[in-house]
Amino acid sequence: MDIPIQEAGEKLVVFMPSGRRGRFKVGTPLLDAARTLGVYVESVCGGRGLCGRCQIEVAEGHFDKLGLTSRASHLTPPGETEGRYRIKPGRRLSCAAKVLGDLVVDVPAEFAVNRQVVRKRAETRRIALDAATRLVTVSLPMAEMEHPIGDADRLIEAIEAAAGYRGLRMDTPMLMQVQDAIASGTVTAAVHEDADRPVVIALWPGTHTGLFGVAFDIGSTTIAGHLVDLTTGRAVASAGTSNPQIRFGEDLMSRVSYLMMNPDDRFALTDAVRGAIATLVSRLAGQVGIRETDILEAVFVGNPVMHHLFLGIDPRALGQAPFALAVSGALRMPARELGLTLHPGARVYLPPCIAGHVGADAAAVALADGPQHHDEVTLVIDVGTNAEILLGNRQRVLAASSPTGPAFEGAQISAGQRAAPGAIERVRIDPVTFEPRIKVLGADPWSDEEGFAESVADIGITGICGSGIIEAVAELFLAGVVAADGTMNPVASDRIRASGRTFDYVLWRGEIEIAVTQTDIRAIQLAKGALYAGARLLMDHLGVDHVERIKLAGAFGSYIEPKYAMVLGMIPDCKLENVAAIGNAAGTGARMALLNRGHRAEVEALVRRVEKIETALEPRFQEHFVNAMAMPNALEPFPHLAAAVALPAATAPAGRRAGRRRG
Amino acid sequence: MDIPIQEAGEKLVVFMPSGRRGRFKVGTPLLDAARTLGVYVESVCGGRGLCGRCQIEVAEGHFDKLGLTSRASHLTPPGETEGRYRIKPGRRLSCAAKVLGDLVVDVPAEFAVNRQVVRKRAETRRIALDAATRLVTVSLPMAEMEHPIGDADRLIEAIEAAAGYRGLRMDTPMLMQVQDAIASGTVTAAVHEDADRPVVIALWPGTHTGLFGVAFDIGSTTIAGHLVDLTTGRAVASAGTSNPQIRFGEDLMSRVSYLMMNPDDRFALTDAVRGAIATLVSRLAGQVGIRETDILEAVFVGNPVMHHLFLGIDPRALGQAPFALAVSGALRMPARELGLTLHPGARVYLPPCIAGHVGADAAAVALADGPQHHDEVTLVIDVGTNAEILLGNRQRVLAASSPTGPAFEGAQISAGQRAAPGAIERVRIDPVTFEPRIKVLGADPWSDEEGFAESVADIGITGICGSGIIEAVAELFLAGVVAADGTMNPVASDRIRASGRTFDYVLWRGEIEIAVTQTDIRAIQLAKGALYAGARLLMDHLGVDHVERIKLAGAFGSYIEPKYAMVLGMIPDCKLENVAAIGNAAGTGARMALLNRGHRAEVEALVRRVEKIETALEPRFQEHFVNAMAMPNALEPFPHLAAAVALPAATAPAGRRAGRRRG
Repeated sequence: MDIPIQEAGEKLVVFMPSGRRGRFKVGTPLLDAARTLGVYVESVCGGRGLCGRCQIEVAEGHFDKLGLTSRASHLTPPGETEGRYRIKPGRRLSCAAKVLGDLVVDVPAEFAVNRQVVRKRAETRRIALDAATRLVTVSLPMAEMEHPIGDADRLIEAIEAAAGYRGLRMDTPMLMQVQDAIASGTVTAAVHEDADRPVVIALWPGTHTGLFGVAFDIGSTTIAGHLVDLTTGRAVASAGTSNPQIRFGEDLMSRVSYLMMNPDDRFALTDAVRGAIATLVSRLAGQVGIRETDILEAVFVGNPVMHHLFLGIDPRALGQAPFALAVSGALRMPARELGLTLHPGARVYLPPCIAGHVGADAAAVALADGPQHHDEVTLVIDVGTNAEILLGNRQRVLAASSPTGPAFEGAQISAGQRAAPGAIERVRIDPVTFEPRIKVLGADPWSDEEGFAESVADIGITGICGSGIIEAVAELFLAGVVAADGTMNPVASDRIRASGRTFDYVLWRGEIEIAVTQTDIRAIQLAKGALYAGARLLMDHLGVDHVERIKLAGAFGSYIEPKYAMVLGMIPDCKLENVAAIGNAAGTGARMALLNRGHRAEVEALVRRVEKIETALEPRFQEHFVNAMAMPNALEPFPHLAAAVALPAATAPAGRRAGRRRG
Repeated sequence: MDIPIQEAGEKLVVFMPSGRRGRFKVGTPLLDAARTLGVYVESVCGGRGLCGRCQIEVAEGHFDKLGLTSRASHLTPPGETEGRYRIKPGRRLSCAAKVLGDLVVDVPAEFAVNRQVVRKRAETRRIALDAATRLVTVSLPMAEMEHPIGDADRLIEAIEAAAGYRGLRMDTPMLMQVQDAIASGTVTAAVHEDADRPVVIALWPGTHTGLFGVAFDIGSTTIAGHLVDLTTGRAVASAGTSNPQIRFGEDLMSRVSYLMMNPDDRFALTDAVRGAIATLVSRLAGQVGIRETDILEAVFVGNPVMHHLFLGIDPRALGQAPFALAVSGALRMPARELGLTLHPGARVYLPPCIAGHVGADAAAVALADGPQHHDEVTLVIDVGTNAEILLGNRQRVLAASSPTGPAFEGAQISAGQRAAPGAIERVRIDPVTFEPRIKVLGADPWSDEEGFAESVADIGITGICGSGIIEAVAELFLAGVVAADGTMNPVASDRIRASGRTFDYVLWRGEIEIAVTQTDIRAIQLAKGALYAGARLLMDHLGVDHVERIKLAGAFGSYIEPKYAMVLGMIPDCKLENVAAIGNAAGTGARMALLNRGHRAEVEALVRRVEKIETALEPRFQEHFVNAMAMPNALEPFPHLAAAVALPAATAPAGRRAGRRRG
């Protein structure tokens, strides 16, 4: 990354450990500088001096290589805001401290990690049990001098005879354990069947009954794991954590950019994600009182960058055309080859990646609840930083990825924050008075209900999360405050406030003020336009002009009402009752691959026949994108939506415009 | 090990690191104490103060657990002998220092390692080339966004198309290397075919031509390795070293006993052998200027204890009945699972073990030159500390092991030493004058030839090695100095010297005196009796009373004349021209398994059909053993030998006695 040319009065700020740097005007809050550069600094309140989380440290001294001298005095002195928090000496709040001179800023690890509520849980779903590993207990006669056959070989014969295997072999680490295991005459073996030949991967003396597996969904932001009893099929524990790679970049592409600048740090990112998995494995095992070595099977899904980094593969090729995957097929390997803290013989399975931007997580979504399960044309959307889109039916399945960016997750929104207690998550706006009602994460009552003030007293109202901003914009549109083209109308309400040449809508006036700005609305329009354009592109390829069923996967899908998604034009028009949140489908798909070998074959066959559409190659994607900026959008009429919701009159021109373009 | 009950005037001596301990009379040389306990202390001269190699250190202080106080002053003070050598302060020569009090003695590592001449070299033998790994070079088109298939998957397809593989897979470590390997568009893959599915184990950008393998014979005493060019089949380098495990015990059973006392040290023995292999790999690669990572295939053979320790398996079960192998079948695994310093994808093959005392080394001997290659009844003997014996023909093959002990290697012989420069290796005794002629290892002329004195001036004459003592005893027998029952006759010669109630034959009078004692002859009788009894037992099982062909395998077999082996009755009577040394057949067999996959299948099938005879279970073994003590022995007539060699008249009774027993 080149250092930007210095303009008068601009100071150089370098964030460590990422090394991201930029020049900023004197007076710029450090948190803004961090956000501009894509450096993740935790901030629950969104930079309003309310959470005390956005702590940083200034490195003192002259940095030859960077050509700057950094001093704590190059920040504005601590004021009243910082006085309110107990902060370690040397630490500053990046929202309050403003740039006065050149700076090298270190983000302490504990504040670079995001403490959002991990909303991923195991969906309850019946999955037929046919795990890749099973237990076989056999009795073994004593060794006989007359027949000098090795313990391992005798054991193999006994298991083959008892369980009907042929060509059974013993995994290398078990060769060292076989003597102890057979000492009592009875031995339990774990036989892994999802290999070219069945293989003994674990041994216990006597009768052993516990057999566990883990399924992990490695997201850019969060890593969620489920511990599954492979003898019953039940998920017995779940745990999640933030992805510690966030220290190297907030989103996928900033991490890939980081690696382009610091290629030697690749293993640091790999170690970070494996370390988080080790911590989760330990927590999962601890929750039910088993040992980590009781875990014999593991399935991992993730987007292509996470998939590659987990495997130790350089993901830089995924950051630029042709977005080449190093490996796309399903993978099977011993867990020890990835340095995982499971049983030494444990086996890992990764479903295939679909394309450069459509990973094993999307394959897992497809396995769990893909269009191929239906006769009707079905759209499946998994919204994260990128949106993965699947469209089709039993005959054909198409897949693409759309670069929605992180706005749907509350990033790039002025008062945005991740989903954490204190975040506004639901919004209603009275179309007559333009007065809002809100619901806050962590508090049960709505703002106009009894007990609201008490229930938010402790947690505060600190910002607005993804579902909150979507509902806010949609409700503002339905109330006529926001026009179909996204412009804020200065309706007659003291909630409307001029801000330069545009207007803000003040959603909450409390200890802090939370407003929806014109810039926020534009950010949502860009994100939803990209999402819709991706879906529309697939509809073109499939040759349909409407979809019969829509499924919203992911934590996000569970927390927005389909109605609002459609009001914004995030998703195509569809009968509202046919739009459903399907929860953490990637996690469900991972558990299916964990519990049933047939599902592994199924997802591999499915991915082979999926038609992959690369949005970057399609001129029409850009065209759809522009037209999808309006609300709901300018590409199609929304008769189902119009029947269910009173759309403002102002939408009519959008519909006509669409008609004109397509006529 | 219990501490022996103290007798009057006996002192406790404990050798470290083995912890072997015993009580010895005041005045016992430490070297004798070490030998009594089976502790290996290097001594080229056999304890005659001539080599300065037998250095030890005394630990000072009170040892609570051992219940003794050790002092340097508990040894006789250094005298003239030790004054002749430059010895580090604190060191003593164990041949000169005598026990005065309790002692804890440490054998410095450099003197616990045996510096004998490693006589194992690659035999020249044509082996058909069909290695388990081969190279495939392919061109790979650029990644295309339209077909988002992973680099690894595209490469697999290209190799399958170019080389006709099906179901090819990629080894885990290669997933991380595939991007760099394909960058130039041309890539060379090493495909390992000796697996359930072919697997890509190495990748190089562009065209790569080098492909190497190593074959190792892990002996108790020496480890020998050969580097083979897998594209030509040629052995391009050889290297050998002493087995550093010797620090833990001179022979196999003393190492197993050491582990019974110190079970936690198992990995120290495994690390020792793997470390020696790493050193040899480095030397082999250095000899021809390749990198260790150019080595893709490795074959290891060894006796069962070495085989198990190399694999990290506890060998203690091999030390007592039923001598149970932890694993007997052939093994295939990635070299990285054994921590070997080869290419990360390199593959290891170990031939099967035949029985608890008949290892993968014997299987390799059988593969190279076993009885199954012949119509005639053929006896194959590999003499080491144990002798492995194979008997049979195309129809049947029997195998057993005989506990010969280390006398044939010069151990347990008063002037014995390992085969090193200065050792007497050949002996002739005039049947009239009883005067000897000798040949010394490292000197070309015989002792009665010109230039002998000059050629031994530097190396000295330091002792007698295995082939030397066998020839000496055989020649003494042929000259009538030793009777058929092994008793030394006091013939009229100043070479004969009384020693208590028995006689010595003084073989060499030089700077030191080298004699063959009655005890030496008994040690050779015991060893050869055991060897013959094992062969005889197999003859009984096969139902034959003579063999038509004898092959002597191993370094030992190459250095003794078959005639002398037969004169002693080590081996059964046979036409002398049908007795042949076959060299390092175990090493040859290992190279065959390295170079040709068919030979792997062959040795596995062969070992399955070998009839395993456990000598410990056979009452007749003991009976044969007793009768085989005489020379040649009391079990059979030796007509072929008698036709070739003038046997002394005194042998007739032996022949008659045999006839009586068998009649």
